[in-house]
Amino acid sequence: MEKNILFPQIGGLVHGGDYNPEQWLDRPDILEKDIEMMKKAGINCVTLGIFAWSVYEPREGEFHFGWMKRIMDNLYANGIFTILGTPSGARPAWLDEAYPEAMRVNRQGIRNHHGGRHNHCMTSPKFREKVTIIDKKLAENFGNHPGLLLWHVSNELGGECYCPLCIKRFQDYLAEKFHHDIDELNKAWWTTFWSHNYNSFDQIEPPFLDGERSIMGLNLEWKRFTTWNMKEYLDLEIQTLRRETPDVPVTTNFMQLYNGLDYDFLSESIDIISWDSYPRFHNDYESLYDTMAETAFHHTVMRSLKKNKPFMLMESAPGLVNWHPFNKLKRPGIHMLSSLQAIACGSDTVQYFQWRKGRGSFEQYHGAVIDHLGRDDTRIFNEVSEVGDALEKLSEVAGTTTEAKAALLFDWDTRWAIQDVMALGKENKQYEKVCMDIWKEFLKLGVEMDVISSSSDFSKYRLIVAPMLYVLKKGTAARLREFVQGGGQLFATYFTGYVDENLLCFLGGFPGDGLSELFGTIIEEIDTLYPSDRNRICFEDETIWEVRDCAETMRVNDAKILARYMDDFYRDTPALTCKKNGTGKAYYLACRVPAHQMQPLFKRMLSDAEIEEKELPEGVEYHMRAGAEAVWEFYLNHNNESAKVSGVYGTDILSGSNIDGNLLLEKYQAVVIRR
Amino acid sequence: MEKNILFPQIGGLVHGGDYNPEQWLDRPDILEKDIEMMKKAGINCVTLGIFAWSVYEPREGEFHFGWMKRIMDNLYANGIFTILGTPSGARPAWLDEAYPEAMRVNRQGIRNHHGGRHNHCMTSPKFREKVTIIDKKLAENFGNHPGLLLWHVSNELGGECYCPLCIKRFQDYLAEKFHHDIDELNKAWWTTFWSHNYNSFDQIEPPFLDGERSIMGLNLEWKRFTTWNMKEYLDLEIQTLRRETPDVPVTTNFMQLYNGLDYDFLSESIDIISWDSYPRFHNDYESLYDTMAETAFHHTVMRSLKKNKPFMLMESAPGLVNWHPFNKLKRPGIHMLSSLQAIACGSDTVQYFQWRKGRGSFEQYHGAVIDHLGRDDTRIFNEVSEVGDALEKLSEVAGTTTEAKAALLFDWDTRWAIQDVMALGKENKQYEKVCMDIWKEFLKLGVEMDVISSSSDFSKYRLIVAPMLYVLKKGTAARLREFVQGGGQLFATYFTGYVDENLLCFLGGFPGDGLSELFGTIIEEIDTLYPSDRNRICFEDETIWEVRDCAETMRVNDAKILARYMDDFYRDTPALTCKKNGTGKAYYLACRVPAHQMQPLFKRMLSDAEIEEKELPEGVEYHMRAGAEAVWEFYLNHNNESAKVSGVYGTDILSGSNIDGNLLLEKYQAVVIRR
Amino acid sequence: MEKNILFPQIGGLVHGGDYNPEQWLDRPDILEKDIEMMKKAGINCVTLGIFAWSVYEPREGEFHFGWMKRIMDNLYANGIFTILGTPSGARPAWLDEAYPEAMRVNRQGIRNHHGGRHNHCMTSPKFREKVTIIDKKLAENFGNHPGLLLWHVSNELGGECYCPLCIKRFQDYLAEKFHHDIDELNKAWWTTFWSHNYNSFDQIEPPFLDGERSIMGLNLEWKRFTTWNMKEYLDLEIQTLRRETPDVPVTTNFMQLYNGLDYDFLSESIDIISWDSYPRFHNDYESLYDTMAETAFHHTVMRSLKKNKPFMLMESAPGLVNWHPFNKLKRPGIHMLSSLQAIACGSDTVQYFQWRKGRGSFEQYHGAVIDHLGRDDTRIFNEVSEVGDALEKLSEVAGTTTEAKAALLFDWDTRWAIQDVMALGKENKQYEKVCMDIWKEFLKLGVEMDVISSSSDFSKYRLIVAPMLYVLKKGTAARLREFVQGGGQLFATYFTGYVDENLLCFLGGFPGDGLSELFGTIIEEIDTLYPSDRNRICFEDETIWEVRDCAETMRVNDAKILARYMDDFYRDTPALTCKKNGTGKAYYLACRVPAHQMQPLFKRMLSDAEIEEKELPEGVEYHMRAGAEAVWEFYLNHNNESAKVSGVYGTDILSGSNIDGNLLLEKYQAVVIRR
Repeated sequence: MEKNILFPQIGGLVHGGDYNPEQWLDRPDILEKDIEMMKKAGINCVTLGIFAWSVYEPREGEFHFGWMKRIMDNLYANGIFTILGTPSGARPAWLDEAYPEAMRVNRQGIRNHHGGRHNHCMTSPKFREKVTIIDKKLAENFGNHPGLLLWHVSNELGGECYCPLCIKRFQDYLAEKFHHDIDELNKAWWTTFWSHNYNSFDQIEPPFLDGERSIMGLNLEWKRFTTWNMKEYLDLEIQTLRRETPDVPVTTNFMQLYNGLDYDFLSESIDIISWDSYPRFHNDYESLYDTMAETAFHHTVMRSLKKNKPFMLMESAPGLVNWHPFNKLKRPGIHMLSSLQAIACGSDTVQYFQWRKGRGSFEQYHGAVIDHLGRDDTRIFNEVSEVGDALEKLSEVAGTTTEAKAALLFDWDTRWAIQDVMALGKENKQYEKVCMDIWKEFLKLGVEMDVISSSSDFSKYRLIVAPMLYVLKKGTAARLREFVQGGGQLFATYFTGYVDENLLCFLGGFPGDGLSELFGTIIEEIDTLYPSDRNRICFEDETIWEVRDCAETMRVNDAKILARYMDDFYRDTPALTCKKNGTGKAYYLACRVPAHQMQPLFKRMLSDAEIEEKELPEGVEYHMRAGAEAVWEFYLNHNNESAKVSGVYGTDILSGSNIDGNLLLEKYQAVVIRR
Repeated sequence: MEKNILFPQIGGLVHGGDYNPEQWLDRPDILEKDIEMMKKAGINCVTLGIFAWSVYEPREGEFHFGWMKRIMDNLYANGIFTILGTPSGARPAWLDEAYPEAMRVNRQGIRNHHGGRHNHCMTSPKFREKVTIIDKKLAENFGNHPGLLLWHVSNELGGECYCPLCIKRFQDYLAEKFHHDIDELNKAWWTTFWSHNYNSFDQIEPPFLDGERSIMGLNLEWKRFTTWNMKEYLDLEIQTLRRETPDVPVTTNFMQLYNGLDYDFLSESIDIISWDSYPRFHNDYESLYDTMAETAFHHTVMRSLKKNKPFMLMESAPGLVNWHPFNKLKRPGIHMLSSLQAIACGSDTVQYFQWRKGRGSFEQYHGAVIDHLGRDDTRIFNEVSEVGDALEKLSEVAGTTTEAKAALLFDWDTRWAIQDVMALGKENKQYEKVCMDIWKEFLKLGVEMDVISSSSDFSKYRLIVAPMLYVLKKGTAARLREFVQGGGQLFATYFTGYVDENLLCFLGGFPGDGLSELFGTIIEEIDTLYPSDRNRICFEDETIWEVRDCAETMRVNDAKILARYMDDFYRDTPALTCKKNGTGKAYYLACRVPAHQMQPLFKRMLSDAEIEEKELPEGVEYHMRAGAEAVWEFYLNHNNESAKVSGVYGTDILSGSNIDGNLLLEKYQAVVIRR
Repeated sequence: MEKNILFPQIGGLVHGGDYNPEQWLDRPDILEKDIEMMKKAGINCVTLGIFAWSVYEPREGEFHFGWMKRIMDNLYANGIFTILGTPSGARPAWLDEAYPEAMRVNRQGIRNHHGGRHNHCMTSPKFREKVTIIDKKLAENFGNHPGLLLWHVSNELGGECYCPLCIKRFQDYLAEKFHHDIDELNKAWWTTFWSHNYNSFDQIEPPFLDGERSIMGLNLEWKRFTTWNMKEYLDLEIQTLRRETPDVPVTTNFMQLYNGLDYDFLSESIDIISWDSYPRFHNDYESLYDTMAETAFHHTVMRSLKKNKPFMLMESAPGLVNWHPFNKLKRPGIHMLSSLQAIACGSDTVQYFQWRKGRGSFEQYHGAVIDHLGRDDTRIFNEVSEVGDALEKLSEVAGTTTEAKAALLFDWDTRWAIQDVMALGKENKQYEKVCMDIWKEFLKLGVEMDVISSSSDFSKYRLIVAPMLYVLKKGTAARLREFVQGGGQLFATYFTGYVDENLLCFLGGFPGDGLSELFGTIIEEIDTLYPSDRNRICFEDETIWEVRDCAETMRVNDAKILARYMDDFYRDTPALTCKKNGTGKAYYLACRVPAHQMQPLFKRMLSDAEIEEKELPEGVEYHMRAGAEAVWEFYLNHNNESAKVSGVYGTDILSGSNIDGNLLLEKYQAVVIRR
C-alpha cells in the first residue's frame, strides 16, 4: 500500500484550525501574539477567510486583498501553512440588499431576510456571478502563494430553497430525468392515487408546507434535486478555482450525517473529504465509550467516502462548544484521546474551530485554543500543545489508509425514504440508529468495517451488513446476489427491498427485485409494536433474542430457519433464516433486535468470512492503518480507569518503548504501536 | 317495526370496499384477477371513482368515461354492485393551475399550494362550477347503470377556508342571522368588552391566527358557518345528482367525532349515514374492551343521526392502517369481531379501505384485502372471506334498527364552546371523554343508549344523561323541563346551562334559562383542581366517590341532597341533588367523578325509568336489533379468553345451533342470536 | 420619614377595581345596584374607561362623553373616586379599517388582523394622532372632575412591531446612538464575524424570525429600542394629559417581570408605579409560602422602582382568574392575606380586576366582586367587604414607605443578554429564578431587600447581592468597587462581568472592567453540568454545598479561599472567595448552589453589614413600613395552621388588642402591629 500524502509541503500530520485575523486587524499586538502562540502549540496550518467576504469586498466591486496577503506571508514565514476558504458561507449585507434573489425562500414560500449564514439560493444567477468573481480574484491573488495548501470551498453547505428559480430548475431537472415524458413521471410516482396526475412538468412544485407532501416519489426526488443543485453550485466554485490553480486540491467541510445532502453523491466533486466533529462528551444519557464509538462511526462514514486516501478532521472544539443543549467542558485527557481517535480512524489532520474566540456575536463562547483571557498557560492551551507534540511524533502515519474486509451498507435514498414512509411507528423508524448500533458491535470485535452506499463496489468485501435496505436502486439487488454467489456473507433485515428507486412497491412479495430468491423467503405482513410491546425469537440451542418495534411474518421457501418467534399470533413462525447461494450465505432477520444480542451471529459470519476479530477489554477501541513498510495499531482507552490489552507487539511510538505482549493503557490513554 | 332495507338490489348486508381500478388500467391481468378474488372473498359491492377526476377529465373539458363503464359493466356481470363517488375530494392539477381560488387560504391568510386532498374552498364559484359539470356528466353516464347502488359524494369533507370569498360569505351569513342589524350582533357577542364593537358587517373577519380570537360568539359562529357553508356546497353536489337520478340515494362519509363540522346539522342533507372507522386495536394504553367500547360509541353516534334506518361502515382496515402513530396488525379474529360489532350497532355494511394496495404514494402501506404480494391465500384474505360468509348468513338482519329508551345528550355547540371557553383547566376540559365514559357505563349494563343533540326529540326517551351541557340553545331548557315533568329521568352535571346560544352568560344563577328551578339548585362558584388534587363526596350510606378536575359549590333550594363534599373549604356542602318534577326526576352532580363510580346511580335511574339492564360478564358487549318478525341479539367477547353468558335463548345464526340458557363465547367470538 | 400620600382626596388606602359600566348602559337597574353594592363592600375608587374607545367614539370623529360623565358624577356623589383610563389598550374596528398601519407586523413580517388588544404599532403616526385626539378630549371633559384621582394610561403595555415604520425608526435610533458612524456600530457588534458588517444604518433590520438573529448586540439593542419606542409613545399620551391637567398624577399598569420591556427605564415617565398581580395560589408544584414569597418579590420589584412613595396594586382577582392553566379558587382567608401582603410590601391600594363579570367574550369567567349570579351575599363578596373594613382600619399606614439597607441587583440588560447568550445550558440559564431564590432567603431572615438595577444608587445600601451580573454597563464596575471600598458587603457569582454593554467580551479575564481586582480572582473556564450531574464545594469547617448546572474554575490572586470544589477534575480548586477592599468585602461564588444552602453566608454578611435579622417561624412573612410618627410591622402566616412569633410588641390595629411579646397567628392570618 502506497502512502497517499495529502500535503507534501507538510509531509506529516496537520495540526491547525480556523483563524479569523480579519476580526483583529486593529490589534496588531494580538496578531503578533497569535503567531508566537501557534508555534508554541505546534500549529502548522491555519484555515483563513471562511467568512471574510465583507472584508475582501466591503462594497460591491471594491476589493481589498492586501491584508490577507500580509497575514499569509507572515504565517508562512513562521512555518505555518494556509488553507484558504472561499467566502460564500455568508453574504455581505450589500449583496442581499442589491440582489434579494440570493436569499432563500422557505418551505412556506416566504423569502428570508438578510442575516445568518449558509442560506444562499443555490440557483440564483446573480449570487453565482458574485461568488465566481470573488473566487476568481482569490485564486488570482493567492493561488501561487507558497503557503497555500488547499481550497476550502464555502462552509458546511446545507439547506434548501423554494424560490421560483429553484422551482423552475427542479422542473427542468425532472423533465430531463423523465425524458420530457410527463406520463413516465406520473407512472413512476403513482400519481393516479388521489388524482394527482400532472399534465406538464411546469405544474410540479416542491413539497411546500401547505402544498403537495403526499407523493413519496416527489418528496424523495426533491431531496435528490437539492443535492444535485448544491453539487452543481459547488462545482461552479471548484471550476472557478481549478481554472486558475489546477494543482491545488479542494475540499468542502461536511457535517456528520447531515440529513439534507447526499454526501456520497456530493463527495465526487472534491479532492479530499473533510468534516466537523462535535461530540457531546460526558453527557448524562450514554457512556463515554458510546459517545466515542458513535464518533468513530462518523469518522468511518467520512473515511469510506474516499477509501484510497486520508480524510481531514476540519473542525473540532479544543474545549467545549456553545450550541449544545449543555455546553460541558472536555475533561483532561479527552482532547488527546479524541484527537488521536481521528488519526486512528484515518484522518491526517486535527483541526480546530477556532484558534481564538471572537469578542462578540453568535460564537463568542465557542471553545478555542486562545480564550478571551488571552493566555498560553491555560489547561486547554496545554492540552492542545500536547496534541501538537503527539502529531509531530506520529508523522510517519501520514498518508496511510485503512483496509476493511467488512462493510455496512448505509444508503442515503433509503434513509430519506424511511424518514418519509407512512408505515411502521411514526417516531420509531430509527434507520440511522439501527445502522450505527450494528456497526458498533463490529467495532467492539476489533473489526474495521467500511460504511458504504448501495452504489459502492461490493466485490472488495467478504461480509456486508445491510439493515433495512428499503430502497433497491436499479442493479443493487443483482449486485448483492453476485456478492453472495461469489462467497460473500450478507446480512439483511425486516424492511428490505420494499420499493424501487421511485418508491414504487415491488409486486409479488418483498424483498423484491429478485432478492426473495436470494434469501429464500417472502414477507407476508409487517407488524409494528407499541413501545412497551415485546416478542422474542428462539434458536435451536434455546438462545433467545428480544424483539421490539417491528416484526415481519414470512413464508420460507428454501432457506434454513435459524430462529422462530416465541410469542403472539405468529409464534413458532420463522424469524431468522439463512440461505446458501453459491459459496456465500444470505441471512434475513425479520424483526428488530437490540444489536448486542446479535453479536454471536456476527462472530459466526466473520468466521465464515475469514475475517479476524480481536479480543479487546470493554471500553477499549481499536483501529489499524497500513502503509507499504509497516502497520500502525491504535488502542484507545475510553474507560475512567486503566485497561490491559494482551497480544500487542511493537513499538509504542509516543513513548518510544517496546511492547511485548501486554499493553497497559492508563485512563483515557491512546497508544499507537508500529508493528 | 318495518325493515328499512338500504339497497333492495342486494337485499342483505353489503360487503365491499374502495376500489381504484384507474391505478391499474395498464394491467388488465390484475383487473381480471381482482374480480375473481372479490368473488372468492364474498364481496358484493365496491366503491369506485372517489379520486378519479384526473382520469375522467385529464385536461379541462376533455372527458373519458368509457373505462369506468367497462369496469362497472364487468363488476355487475359478476354480481358486484357499485357505489359511485363524485371525485371532488381531490382536484386535478390543471384545475388549481387555472383557478387558484379553488385552493384554500389558511388561518394565517396564506393560500395553499396545489396538492393533498380535501382542501377545496367551499365557496369558490369556479370550483363549484367545475364540480357541477363533472357530477352532471357522471350522473348522465352512470345514473341508469343497473349496478349503481348509491352516490358517495366527495370524501371525508372537512376543513375551513379564510379566503376573501369565504370572508365575504361569512359576513353575508352574519348579516342575515342578525337581521342586518349590527347592534344586535354587538349585543349578542358582548363586543363592548375590549372595545370590539363593529360598525358594519363587512368589518368582521373570521378568527385569523393573528387576528380576532377573543370574541367567543364569533369563534363559535365561524364554526357554525363553516358547517353551514360546507352543507351548502354538499347540497349543490347532491342537487346536481338528484336532478338526473332522483331515485339513487346519496351519502357522504363521516369521520368519527371529527371536530370541524356539526354532523348533526350536516346529516340532514344525505339519505344514508356512512362513516370511516379506524380504531387503534391492541394499543398499550387501554384494554381491548375499551377500544371496542369507544368504537361502539362512535357507531352509536352515527346510528343516532338517522334512527329509522341502518347506517354504513363505509371504510375500515382489513389489516392495519399506515397513519397511526404505531401501525399494528389486527390480531386473528379481530377483523370478524369488529366487523360484526358494526352490524350489532346498526350498520348494514362492512366496507374496506381498500381492496388493493396502490404501488406508490401516501397510502401504499394502508391495509387492503389484496397486498402487494397479490395473493388470495394470506391471513388477511382468509379473514375477509370469513366475514363475507358471516355477512351472507346474517342477511336477515338487514334493514332492522335499534330501539333505545335512553339517550346521551352530546351537543356540537357545547363541544365547540367548551373547547374555546376560558375557564376550568386549559387542557383538562374533556367534554368528549366525559360523555363517552358515561355512555360506556350504560353499555356495560347492556342498555342501548342513543347519542342525541339538544335539538333532538326528547319525548321518545325515558332517561337522558346530559353531562356538561354548557350551552342552552333557545328551547332546550323548556324541553328538558317538559321531559322531566312527563316522567323522564334526567342527569346533569357541573358546567350546565352557563350560556345561551351566543355564549352570553345567563344572569341570576346557573344553570340558567329556568333550569335552576328544575334542579332546585343554584351554582355559586366553580373550583378547578390541579391534576393531583382530589376531593370526595359522601352519601348517606357512606358510599364515597372521588372528585377530580372541577367542583361547583351550590345553594340548594328545594332539591334532595344525595351527597356532600368531604374535603376542602366546601366540606359538607351539597354535591349531588335530586328533585322530583311532575312524575320525573332531575339529578344534578356538581363535580367530576370517574364514570364507573356513578354506576349505582345509573342503575337506580334505569330502574325508575323501567329500562331493563342485562347481566354481562366483564369484557362482553351486547346489542340488539329489532325487526317486525324477530329480534337479534349480539354478544361480542373482547376478552383474550372464553366467557359465559347466561339467560340466552334462541338460534345462533352463524353456527345454526340452538342456545338454551348458557352461551359460551370463545376468545374474540361474536355470536348472533335470533330470538 | 414624611408620609407620601398618593391621593389626598382619599387620605387613606384605596379599595377599588376595574369597572366597565359601558357594557351595561342598557341596564340602569344594574348600574344602580353596582353603586349600592360598592358602598357595602367598602369600595372608595373605581377604574373606568380602560376599553371604552368604541363607546366614546363609535365612528371616527363622533364623540360621546355624556354617559361617562353621568357615571362619574353618580359615583362621586356616592363617595367613590375615579381612576380614568386612556382607551388606547384596544382600538375600535373603524380605526384599523381606516388605518391598517396601526396594526402590528409580527416577527415573520406578517401584519396582524384587527382584533385582540395591546397590539398597536407604537410608531404609527396615524395611531398616535388618533390617541392624542381622544386623550385630549378626555382630559378636557374629565380633567376637572372632582372625582378624578389619577390617569391610567393605556393598559398593560407590551409587545413589539416589525413594520416598516418601526424598522426605519430603529435605524434612526441606531444612527443616533452610534453617532452616525456605521463602523462604530460594526465594532460594537463585532459584525466582522460571519461577514456581517453593515455599510449603512438603513441595511439593518430587526431580528426577524427568518433573518438576522445571530448578532447578540443587535438582539439586545432591538429590545432596548422597543422599550425606548414604547416609552416615547407613552410619553406622548402623558404629555397630552399633562398639558390639560398638570396636577393629576399618571400611571400605567405593569405586569410582574414582563420580559418585553425594561420597567426600570419605562418607570421614569410615570408618577406612580402600579401593577397587576395574579399568583397561582394553591398550585400543585410549590408550597403556599413559596407562591406568596414570589409575590412578595414581585411587589418589591415594583416598590423599588420608586422607593420614596407607595405603589398601587392595580389589579388582583377577587376569586380566581380564567387564563391560568388551572383556574382554582382562592381559599377562604387568602383574599385578606394576599391583599394585606400588598400593603405590607408597600402598596397603598388593593384593586381588582374586575368589579362585575361581563356576560360575554374573553374574560366572562375572570373573577370579579360581583358574579353573573348578581348577589352581595356570596363568599367572595363577603371576603372583599372584609378587606374593605381592614383597609379602612389601616388607613394610618397610607403614605409610609419601606427602609431597606440591603439590595438585590436585578438587571434588565443582563436578563435579556443571558436569555439570548449562546453558552451554558440552553434551557437552564434561570437568571430570574436565581435572583428570586436568593431574595427569598433574605425574606426568610426578615430582612427588607430592595430589588435594584445596575444604574441605581448603591450608596444607600450596606449589602448588595448581584447574582450572574453578566453585563457591565459603563460605570457599573467602578461604582461596585466604590461601594465595597466604602464598607459594603458585595456578593457576586459565576457569569459576572463577561461583557460590556454592547455584549463584547472583556479581554484579559472575567470578571472584566476591573472587577477581577475587586474580587481577587480571574475565571479560566466555565463548565456546564448536565441536569443529573453534581459537584460539591467544601468549607474549612467541613460544611458542604451542592453544585448544579454550572461551575467556573478560577485563578485566585489575592482573595481568601472560603471553599473548594470536592469533585471532578477541578477538585480542590477554589469555589468561593472573599477579598477585603477598603472597609468592605467582595465575595465571589464560582458555581450554582441551591439558595437555601447559602443562608449561613448571607447571615455572616448581614452581621458584617450590621443589618438585623429576625427570628421567624417557618411560613411566616414579615415586613415593615415606617412613617414619621411610628413603625408598622406586618406578620403574614402562610401556614395551614397557627404560628407563634415572639418578640412582638405594640398594637394589633385590626383587632385593637395590645401584643406584649408573643403573637399568635391563626391559619392564613395577617396582623399589623403599630410600634
